[in-house]
Amino acid sequence: MPIQAYAAPAVRGPLEPYTYEPGPLGPGEVEIRITHSGICHSDIHLIDNDWQISTYPLVPGHEIVGTIRAVGSNVRHVQVGQRVGVGWQSGACYACEQCLAGEEPSCPKNQAVCCHGHFGGFAEAVRSDAAFAHPIPDALASENAAPLLCAGITVYSPIRRYVRPGMRVGVIGVGGLGHLALQFAAAYGAEVTAFSTTAAKEAEARQLGARHFVVSTDARQMESVAGRFDFLISTVTVDLDWPAWVRALRPFGKLCLVGASPGNVSVPVMELVIGQKAILGSIIGGRGMMREMLQFAADHNIRTRSELMPMREINAAIERVRRNQARYRVVLTN
Amino acid sequence: MPIQAYAAPAVRGPLEPYTYEPGPLGPGEVEIRITHSGICHSDIHLIDNDWQISTYPLVPGHEIVGTIRAVGSNVRHVQVGQRVGVGWQSGACYACEQCLAGEEPSCPKNQAVCCHGHFGGFAEAVRSDAAFAHPIPDALASENAAPLLCAGITVYSPIRRYVRPGMRVGVIGVGGLGHLALQFAAAYGAEVTAFSTTAAKEAEARQLGARHFVVSTDARQMESVAGRFDFLISTVTVDLDWPAWVRALRPFGKLCLVGASPGNVSVPVMELVIGQKAILGSIIGGRGMMREMLQFAADHNIRTRSELMPMREINAAIERVRRNQARYRVVLTN
Repeated sequence: MPIQAYAAPAVRGPLEPYTYEPGPLGPGEVEIRITHSGICHSDIHLIDNDWQISTYPLVPGHEIVGTIRAVGSNVRHVQVGQRVGVGWQSGACYACEQCLAGEEPSCPKNQAVCCHGHFGGFAEAVRSDAAFAHPIPDALASENAAPLLCAGITVYSPIRRYVRPGMRVGVIGVGGLGHLALQFAAAYGAEVTAFSTTAAKEAEARQLGARHFVVSTDARQMESVAGRFDFLISTVTVDLDWPAWVRALRPFGKLCLVGASPGNVSVPVMELVIGQKAILGSIIGGRGMMREMLQFAADHNIRTRSELMPMREINAAIERVRRNQARYRVVLTN
Repeated sequence: MPIQAYAAPAVRGPLEPYTYEPGPLGPGEVEIRITHSGICHSDIHLIDNDWQISTYPLVPGHEIVGTIRAVGSNVRHVQVGQRVGVGWQSGACYACEQCLAGEEPSCPKNQAVCCHGHFGGFAEAVRSDAAFAHPIPDALASENAAPLLCAGITVYSPIRRYVRPGMRVGVIGVGGLGHLALQFAAAYGAEVTAFSTTAAKEAEARQLGARHFVVSTDARQMESVAGRFDFLISTVTVDLDWPAWVRALRPFGKLCLVGASPGNVSVPVMELVIGQKAILGSIIGGRGMMREMLQFAADHNIRTRSELMPMREINAAIERVRRNQARYRVVLTN
């Protein structure tokens, strides 16, 4: 049965209604009727072909929640009628070293749900390998769960790897990713500092779990936190004053990059050596990490702050995200 | 009693005989009659004031082995006549968070043996806090032990933290640090690759534990190892093609910097993010790590390849190190 979607017909183009024929359902696949679909900055990067990987017509959307309406002949662990979510990744080889280690995002054959020829979640339905259709815990509302599937896992994964209770953690950027990172880091028992260029975000950042708030464009405030942090997570997509952030780390501190900043990260070698500091990157998370994150969010009342808009207003919704007006995520509904 | 030493009277100057009066021995100090003193590239950086921390007259030398000839009133764990070694660090506060964690090199009050007004190991004797006078295992010859106290601990420490048996480890540079890193990494059960700009070092690199040898100036050879390494350790003090080395890492791979490369390390943000890769710095090691390293070297027959020269030929010896002629360390003897 054809699937009704919204596609960018060409680079940067506004999205238009687009119908595609998904073909026979594979034995390991599911088809999901979409109820909620979050908009991530990566969708904008894809529409604009910023990463030179887009093919058109392009159906973006990779924070998808809905109900399974068909399962392939070999699907066992989920069933028709079940509520599930799909994030950035919708398939992998399941046999390589990375897959065996539960690190499917690093599988050389990882399949993204909304690029490399696959059609994503700005649609009434979507296909995915059943292995990447993640059951949503009952306690999570669908509009809450959708952004967790990309923004949530992206920040949860490095927090899970590197943060212990009592650590001093800084979250750079209070936006779609950052407002979740504040909550996860606080739930991990860290002493959390929010960094933003927008002083007006202070009150909400504190509600989200920040004990301290620093206006990152204020040199004096930045100087006052030099040598302070065990872990900094950059959720922003702009170029940063990298040496200043490394100076904010204490010995053995880590600066973790999850935002798609353009260009290079560049810092003095001796700053890393003498401080024994690290700069590292992280992306989404494997299937095990995803299940754990969803349950953790349910158990700790991690709440996405979202604006709901109907799917048919998709271009207006995308415009809000482009202009950084969303507080803090836009979720499309069918 | 005055101590006879060799000092640089001014920046870049050749060393000259220099006598200083060390004053009364502190209650926690020892005085060591030096038998062996290794020359590290850091000594050249100090003589040349490359790091803007040197004061003159400067007595370099921080790979020191000798025999204790006096102990302060409060010294218990070492005694007169005992063979000990002193590396870069000769004192700390012993009370801060880093000291309590065994990470004395990151103590804000860490004392270097051969700068910040302290006189180092190019001398007939040296003073140190007893806490940093490390007993040398009997199985280690003194000319072998001396370079372990800086070159050895510098590479052992990150290998100990990050390398597991079976990992693919690359050592960048086959020199004073690199020739020890090859041995330690092989003893850790890693599959070791040596990288050098000097093709003629292949045979010796293989003797030292390398299973593979790559001429790092050969673009084709470098391309053939893309995506290969769990752990790369850069022991060189020159600027590198940083993106090329990051490309040589596999997912979750780490590029560890221990050499004092000038300038910045600069790599594309998305290369770190998508590959989930890390760049990190490391320096020497705490007292616990030092004791462990010396015992590990004794147990696993880690051997410094050194050239012995008499202390009075110090300027000729320094010149060999400046010209990268030493294979692989020069050790001065009294």
